[in-house]
Amino acid sequence: MARIVMKFGGTSVADLDRIRNVASRVKREVEAGNEVAVVVSAMSGVTNQLVKWCQELSPLHDAREYDTVVATGEQVTIGLLAIALQTVGVDARSWQGWQVPIRTDNAHGKARVDSIEGALLIERMQMGQVPVVAGFQGIGPDNRITTLGRGGSDLSAVAIAAAVKADRCDIYTDVDGVYTTDPRIVPRARKLDRISYEEMLELASVGAKVLQTRSVELAMKQRVRVQVLSSFEDKPGSLVVDEDEIVEQPIVSGIAYSRDEAKVTLRRVPDRPGIAASVFGPLSAANVNVDMIVQNIGDDGSTDMTFTLGRSDLPRARDLLEKQQAQIGFEALIADPDVAKISVVGIGMRTHAGVASTMFKTLSEKGINIQVISTSEIKVSVLVAADYTELAVRALHTAYGLDGPEPARRGEG
Amino acid sequence: MARIVMKFGGTSVADLDRIRNVASRVKREVEAGNEVAVVVSAMSGVTNQLVKWCQELSPLHDAREYDTVVATGEQVTIGLLAIALQTVGVDARSWQGWQVPIRTDNAHGKARVDSIEGALLIERMQMGQVPVVAGFQGIGPDNRITTLGRGGSDLSAVAIAAAVKADRCDIYTDVDGVYTTDPRIVPRARKLDRISYEEMLELASVGAKVLQTRSVELAMKQRVRVQVLSSFEDKPGSLVVDEDEIVEQPIVSGIAYSRDEAKVTLRRVPDRPGIAASVFGPLSAANVNVDMIVQNIGDDGSTDMTFTLGRSDLPRARDLLEKQQAQIGFEALIADPDVAKISVVGIGMRTHAGVASTMFKTLSEKGINIQVISTSEIKVSVLVAADYTELAVRALHTAYGLDGPEPARRGEG
Repeated sequence: MARIVMKFGGTSVADLDRIRNVASRVKREVEAGNEVAVVVSAMSGVTNQLVKWCQELSPLHDAREYDTVVATGEQVTIGLLAIALQTVGVDARSWQGWQVPIRTDNAHGKARVDSIEGALLIERMQMGQVPVVAGFQGIGPDNRITTLGRGGSDLSAVAIAAAVKADRCDIYTDVDGVYTTDPRIVPRARKLDRISYEEMLELASVGAKVLQTRSVELAMKQRVRVQVLSSFEDKPGSLVVDEDEIVEQPIVSGIAYSRDEAKVTLRRVPDRPGIAASVFGPLSAANVNVDMIVQNIGDDGSTDMTFTLGRSDLPRARDLLEKQQAQIGFEALIADPDVAKISVVGIGMRTHAGVASTMFKTLSEKGINIQVISTSEIKVSVLVAADYTELAVRALHTAYGLDGPEPARRGEG
Repeated sequence: MARIVMKFGGTSVADLDRIRNVASRVKREVEAGNEVAVVVSAMSGVTNQLVKWCQELSPLHDAREYDTVVATGEQVTIGLLAIALQTVGVDARSWQGWQVPIRTDNAHGKARVDSIEGALLIERMQMGQVPVVAGFQGIGPDNRITTLGRGGSDLSAVAIAAAVKADRCDIYTDVDGVYTTDPRIVPRARKLDRISYEEMLELASVGAKVLQTRSVELAMKQRVRVQVLSSFEDKPGSLVVDEDEIVEQPIVSGIAYSRDEAKVTLRRVPDRPGIAASVFGPLSAANVNVDMIVQNIGDDGSTDMTFTLGRSDLPRARDLLEKQQAQIGFEALIADPDVAKISVVGIGMRTHAGVASTMFKTLSEKGINIQVISTSEIKVSVLVAADYTELAVRALHTAYGLDGPEPARRGEG
């Protein structure tokens, strides 16, 4: 017997048939003797429609009213799923964020969970009842509904799993697990049975969009074991766990990529103390996240400074910097939106040398020029021309011995 | 300056343009110096879709989960209207039933309002803010959302008007007021400037479907002045008020009709004490409402008993009575679903004789046979063959001097 939180995303509850399918999955876990709580998203498409209405009425709408409107999507799903569960003989009742309660801060539209009262949910689970909890929402200190931002239902599920001390949090989605890389690019990508929180964070934040980043951070902090698995197929998924639970640690677990990047180079910046602050201070104040930063020291008291940022932030960043050109003192700004970031991720890097040099050698053999390099304890990232993305990912996947024996079969995209 | 509750139904908030239209109406009342609260229904069609989903999952769904699902319709509208109001410069915020709170009993799907906490709403109105309150919903003693049954937003509006001690409750709808009869049948029907609660109740319950009956009962009990007016046109509607407020009382205010009737005759029922109880007891227990009842005394110890009920209840009633034929002891059951009830309504009847005889004489002149008669203090109703409905309504409208000078122009339906 285990206590399990099962979370189903929008495509898993997209219509009544899929809701019935979810009900029979939940029933199976209950009949296996487990205590189960369920967290659901809105039926797919619903949230987008609600968001669109708010935006059409006013691009600058009140975030509190936005939350009131968009939180209804999950409210519909919990009621319908509770009915579907009762229909197949499973005792169930729906819980909205304010009923649990799931307390958040007051940052409407992107609230953070402060605390979750798990006692009532545990009591019901011990009675054999399945709580069906609305994801994505909570209640703020102003007694108004808050939402956690897009993808927030993953976060809800992990937070609830922590609050009810669940043995596992199963995230059902439209992929069947976490892969060594994107199988659309590398058909021989393998599904990982286990992956550490740290690796998952690096993979998620650089482009493997399986789990919302904040939910992985929370799982790591609260030590919640998370399983990613398919709503549509019936097989085990990937477990995201503490690295101590991973007995045989591969040196490299996966190759990630992101095309949502842009590169900015400032030519001939005066090489004096405080120059970095004068460049990145205004960007940070404008909420532009800068990722990789490289500075080449010149020989004439000036330097070239290169950094990357999200592609959608490029126009704003360029505008900001060009307005301050005189103050900062650079000669020219060169922007390149046609770049991609390729990352090699693995906790084994901590104890094994040579990962980076294998990467550089592999890319060099394929004639791929590396524009920027950055490293962390468990990751090496390089920036390359976007055209080379697939070639680089494939070459690295092979070089690190990640290729599976044959093309993996998968559910959806 | 007045304190006004404005209520808008589903067709008045059917899309974003209509929501903007509502916002500008509210703005006008605010700018005229009034304190305003708004009550809204779900966008038209939304509630039906939500109800359909629940029914498709299970015809016998849990009413508590049904309430969770269907209450979202109003939640969407209050958020959108609050945004629309803010966009035109009116300070507004949305209120769900549980936030006010609007406390109800535990009868999910058809709850009754127990109490409404008006203090917070009044405070906001006095600050110049417009509370936008979700109609149709409240919170039960189990801390779950309840709904008040179809048409419940009218009831919410009247109850909120009572709780905030409003000077008037304006019900905006797709008709522009209460008419002397259905203008689709009598183009010369006149809009009534004022009508008493009692008359409105009689007109509503016999077919003039402008205001939900329970909301009129509540308005009468709490002495809330109600105005029915059009969302789409810009002119005064009909005031539903205490009869003391109606200076010049007409003898007859309106002619109502209902085709949703059926007639049942039990032939040769033994004429003994307790026989009525043996017939109507089981019907009442089965929730079949019996309306008019006539009993003709025979000369051989038996009697014919005729009564009317809602047409949709006829199959169930017939089944019930035929099962107990031996016990009750009637000879035959004759059912007629092709009947209509025509009613003449007016508080002036209390002090004026001759209303009923005018009715009988008028119908007789047109060759219309009266099957059953029933009377109350302010109403005379007759049952006639359904084919004669329009003829009877038109003839009576003329006979009581209700015809207007020319065809009235109206908004919708």
